[in-house]
Amino acid sequence: QSNVTVYGIADVYYGFGKYDDNKFNGIESGGIAGSRLGFKGSEDLGNGLKALFTLEYSIDLDKNEGVGTTGLRSRQQFVGLQGGFGFIGAGRQYAPGYFYVAKYDTSAIVPLSPYHKFVGANGSNIQAGSASRVNNSINYISPDFGGLTVNAIYGFNEVNQDNNRTAGDLAQIGAQYNNGPVSVGLIYSQVKQDAAAIPAGYAIAGSDETKKEWFLGASYDFKVVKVTGMYNTVKDATVDGDDNNVWALGAIVPVSAAGSVRLSYASADNDTDDTDADGWTVYYFHSLSKRTTLYTGYARISNDDATRHSLLASTAGQGTDENASSFVVGVNHTF
Amino acid sequence: QSNVTVYGIADVYYGFGKYDDNKFNGIESGGIAGSRLGFKGSEDLGNGLKALFTLEYSIDLDKNEGVGTTGLRSRQQFVGLQGGFGFIGAGRQYAPGYFYVAKYDTSAIVPLSPYHKFVGANGSNIQAGSASRVNNSINYISPDFGGLTVNAIYGFNEVNQDNNRTAGDLAQIGAQYNNGPVSVGLIYSQVKQDAAAIPAGYAIAGSDETKKEWFLGASYDFKVVKVTGMYNTVKDATVDGDDNNVWALGAIVPVSAAGSVRLSYASADNDTDDTDADGWTVYYFHSLSKRTTLYTGYARISNDDATRHSLLASTAGQGTDENASSFVVGVNHTF
Amino acid sequence: QSNVTVYGIADVYYGFGKYDDNKFNGIESGGIAGSRLGFKGSEDLGNGLKALFTLEYSIDLDKNEGVGTTGLRSRQQFVGLQGGFGFIGAGRQYAPGYFYVAKYDTSAIVPLSPYHKFVGANGSNIQAGSASRVNNSINYISPDFGGLTVNAIYGFNEVNQDNNRTAGDLAQIGAQYNNGPVSVGLIYSQVKQDAAAIPAGYAIAGSDETKKEWFLGASYDFKVVKVTGMYNTVKDATVDGDDNNVWALGAIVPVSAAGSVRLSYASADNDTDDTDADGWTVYYFHSLSKRTTLYTGYARISNDDATRHSLLASTAGQGTDENASSFVVGVNHTF
Repeated sequence: QSNVTVYGIADVYYGFGKYDDNKFNGIESGGIAGSRLGFKGSEDLGNGLKALFTLEYSIDLDKNEGVGTTGLRSRQQFVGLQGGFGFIGAGRQYAPGYFYVAKYDTSAIVPLSPYHKFVGANGSNIQAGSASRVNNSINYISPDFGGLTVNAIYGFNEVNQDNNRTAGDLAQIGAQYNNGPVSVGLIYSQVKQDAAAIPAGYAIAGSDETKKEWFLGASYDFKVVKVTGMYNTVKDATVDGDDNNVWALGAIVPVSAAGSVRLSYASADNDTDDTDADGWTVYYFHSLSKRTTLYTGYARISNDDATRHSLLASTAGQGTDENASSFVVGVNHTF
Repeated sequence: QSNVTVYGIADVYYGFGKYDDNKFNGIESGGIAGSRLGFKGSEDLGNGLKALFTLEYSIDLDKNEGVGTTGLRSRQQFVGLQGGFGFIGAGRQYAPGYFYVAKYDTSAIVPLSPYHKFVGANGSNIQAGSASRVNNSINYISPDFGGLTVNAIYGFNEVNQDNNRTAGDLAQIGAQYNNGPVSVGLIYSQVKQDAAAIPAGYAIAGSDETKKEWFLGASYDFKVVKVTGMYNTVKDATVDGDDNNVWALGAIVPVSAAGSVRLSYASADNDTDDTDADGWTVYYFHSLSKRTTLYTGYARISNDDATRHSLLASTAGQGTDENASSFVVGVNHTF
Repeated sequence: QSNVTVYGIADVYYGFGKYDDNKFNGIESGGIAGSRLGFKGSEDLGNGLKALFTLEYSIDLDKNEGVGTTGLRSRQQFVGLQGGFGFIGAGRQYAPGYFYVAKYDTSAIVPLSPYHKFVGANGSNIQAGSASRVNNSINYISPDFGGLTVNAIYGFNEVNQDNNRTAGDLAQIGAQYNNGPVSVGLIYSQVKQDAAAIPAGYAIAGSDETKKEWFLGASYDFKVVKVTGMYNTVKDATVDGDDNNVWALGAIVPVSAAGSVRLSYASADNDTDDTDADGWTVYYFHSLSKRTTLYTGYARISNDDATRHSLLASTAGQGTDENASSFVVGVNHTF
C-alpha cells in the first residue's frame, strides 16, 4: 500500500445551456477538470533511476458508471523509467498538446471552451482532450535545459496487416520554453493516413494522405493580469491546400487572494465557406482551499451559416447560424 | 493517499432457490449487503465547513466483472459541502427511501426480501435498491434537530428538449425522528411523467401523469425484541384511482452476544385483480467480529393467480400461483 | 484504509510478430504477467481464524480501458476463512491448474508461451490463463503437510433449469509436493457437459459427455540450472478415445545476480491428423530491483498442415503450415 497513492478529482456542476429552442438543465461531471480516480507510484532504483507508473481512469460523477466505463475509460496508463536522460514510458499516454493547450487556454472549464470545441471539430490531435491520449505509445520527455523541454510521442495503430503497417500511427513533438513570466510552446503533429485503417478520432474521413498540424501558444504574466494566445492549423489532407485555423486570446485577472476572473475569445477560420465561428467566455474561480474550488461562468458561441457548434444544449432538430449560450456553477475537489 | 479511504464490502453466499419445477443452485454476491468497493474522503475548510466526496462502485464477487461493470455500476458518486446548515451535495446520490427502508426492513438479506420484491414490482422509488439511486441529483440533508432530520433530493432527467423539460425528474422528501427506542420515518416521492421521456426504472409505462408515492415506517426497540413496520403506497397514474400498497412487519430477536434471529412478513395489496402476494422470512445472523458476519435463512413467497414473484429461482417457463422458496448461507466481510 | 492493501502489476512491452505475410508491430500490456490492479486485506478473528478478501482486476495498460472493462474483467474476487483446517473461500477463484502451470512453465512471458497456446487450443482448464478462473466457485486449500498440499475447487454453472442442473459445473483437484529442490504437481479436472448449457471457454463443442483432463508437472533445481517438465492430456468427449496431449520441457539458467536465461520447448500431439505443432522460446530477464524487471526474448512456433497457431501476429487471410515468430522487449513493475 505504501507503493501506491490513490488520487483523483471530483468535479460536478449545475449547467444551463440553450441552442435555439433546445434547452439543457441538469447536473454534469467535470467542469474545471474531468472527474477521475487514479493510482500512481514510483520506485527508487538507485543511481538516479526511478520506475514510475500511473493508472488514471475517468469517472462520471452524475451517472450510473463505474471506474472507466464510459467512452473515456482511461485517461492515461503507463509505466516508465526516469533518470538523467529524462523520462521514457510506454502505454496510453498524453501527447504534449494536452499539457500545452491546458496551459494557454484560459477558459479552463473544458466542456465550455470554444477553442476546444473548434479545434476538436477540425480533427486536431493537439488539444486538452481525448485526441491527445495516445494508445500503444512510447513517450519521451527531456530534462529541463534552462527552461527548455522537449516532448515526443509515437503511437502505434497496430493494423497488424501486410501493407501500410504504419497507417494511423501518430507522431507528435513539442518544445516548450518557460522563464519567469514568459512561456512559449510549439508543436508539430501528424497522423499517417490510410482511408481503410485509421483509428476513430484520428481520421480526416476518406483520405489516404498524412494529416499535418501545427500549434503555437504563449503567455506572459504581468501579475495584475496574465495574457495568453494560441494558434492551431490543421492541414486537411482531403482537399489540396485546404487549411483549418483556430486562434484564441485569453486573460486571467486575480481579483482577491482566493478569486480570479478568466476571459477568453476564440475564432475558427476554415477554408470551407460558411464554417467559421467565434466564441467568448467569462468565468470566476474562487478557492475555498488549495484542494477545493467553486466556479461559475458564462460562454457564448456565434455560428456561421453552415455550423451548429453548441456547448451544453443539444443541436438536434435545430438550424445552423444560431447562437449557443451556457451557464455553469460548480465545485472542483482534488484528493 | 492520506486524502482517500478505500473501503468496501465483500459478501458472498451459497443459495438454493425453487420456483415450481425450476431450481437455482450456486454462489452469489451480496446477501446482507451488496458487495462494493469505495473511495471517500473529506477536507476541513475551516469555520466548521467541510468538503466531502464518495465514489462507490458495485462489485460482483462471483463473476468475471470489473469495478462497476454490471448493470449496477455505481452505487453512489457525489461531492458536497457540510456545515452548520447540514449537507448539500451533487452527483448520483441516494434518495432518503434507501436509508429509511434499510432501517425498518428486518429481512436484511436484500435479494431475499419479499417487501423489496413487492415494492419493486410496483415501480416504487422508495426502496433499498437502485430505484433510490438518483442520477444528476442535488441532495440536502438537514442537521439533527433534537432527533428530527429532513432529507430532500431532486434529480434532473436532462431530457434536453424544448418541451416537458422536467419530464422524468424525480423529487423526494423525507423526515425521520429517532429518540431512544423509537424511530419513525415518513417519505413523499414523485416522478414527473411524460410517456416519451422517462428514464428506465422510473416509469409507469405509457403514462403522462405524475407518479406519486408515500411511505411510512417505524420501529420500537424493547431490548428483548425490536419490532418494525412499513407501509408503502404507489399511486398508479395510468388508471384513475388505482393504488398499489405493500405493508410489512418485522422483528429482531437477540439470542446471544453474537447472534440474532430476524423475522419478517410482507403483503402486497394491489388494485388489479389477482396480483396480490405475500411472503415471510426467517434469518439468523452470527457475528465473528464487528466486520465479519455469517448468515443463513429461508424465505417463502406465495403468489396470486396472476403473479410470478420469485427470489433466487428463475420463473421462466413456469406458471403463476406457485410458491417460491429460497435458502441461503453466506459471509459478509466489511473492510 | 488500514484494512485494505492496494497492489498490482504494470507490465508493458514492445512486440514484433510475424505469421506468413502478416506482421504485428506495437505496444502491448502484460508480458511476464498480466497488468492488474488489486485490493486485498485480512482480519484476525481470534483462535487462529482469519477472514481474507481479494479483489483483483485486469487492466489494459496500452488501451482506452478502465478497471476490468476488457474481456478479462476480474482476475479473481473472493472472500474466505483461513484457519488450522486450511482455507475455504467463495467467489471467482483460481483452480489449482493456474498456479501449478505458472510454476513449471519457464516461458514465463504468458502471451508468448507455446505450451499455453497449445493447451488453450485443446480447451484445457489446467492453464495459467482465464480457463482456470472459476466463477461461482467454492475453493479449498489444505494446510501444508510436510511439503504436501491439496487444493480442490468446484464451480457452479448455475443453469437454473429443471434438468441437467450440474451441466457445465467444473471440478478440479490438485496435489503438490515441494521439498528442497524437488517439486511435483498432479491435477485432475472435469467439466460436466451438456451441449445446450456449457459456459464459454469450457466446452468441447456439441458434446454431451464429461470433459476429463490430467496434468503432471515437475521441477528440479540444480542451482546452476532449474529444469522443469509438464504433461497435459485432454480427453475429447466428442470422439471416442480421442486424446489431445501437450508436453513441455524448460530450463532456467541464472547468469548473474540480476539476470537469468529461460528456455522452453513445447509439443502438441493430437489425435486428429495434421493438428500437431511445436514451439520453442528463449528469454532473458534482468531485475532492476525486486519490483522492477526488464525482459526480452524470442519465440517460434512450427505449424502442421492443419494448424495456424500464432503468438503476436494475426493469422487472418494466411495459410496453414507456416511458422510464427515473435520478439518482445518490455518492463514489469510490481506495486
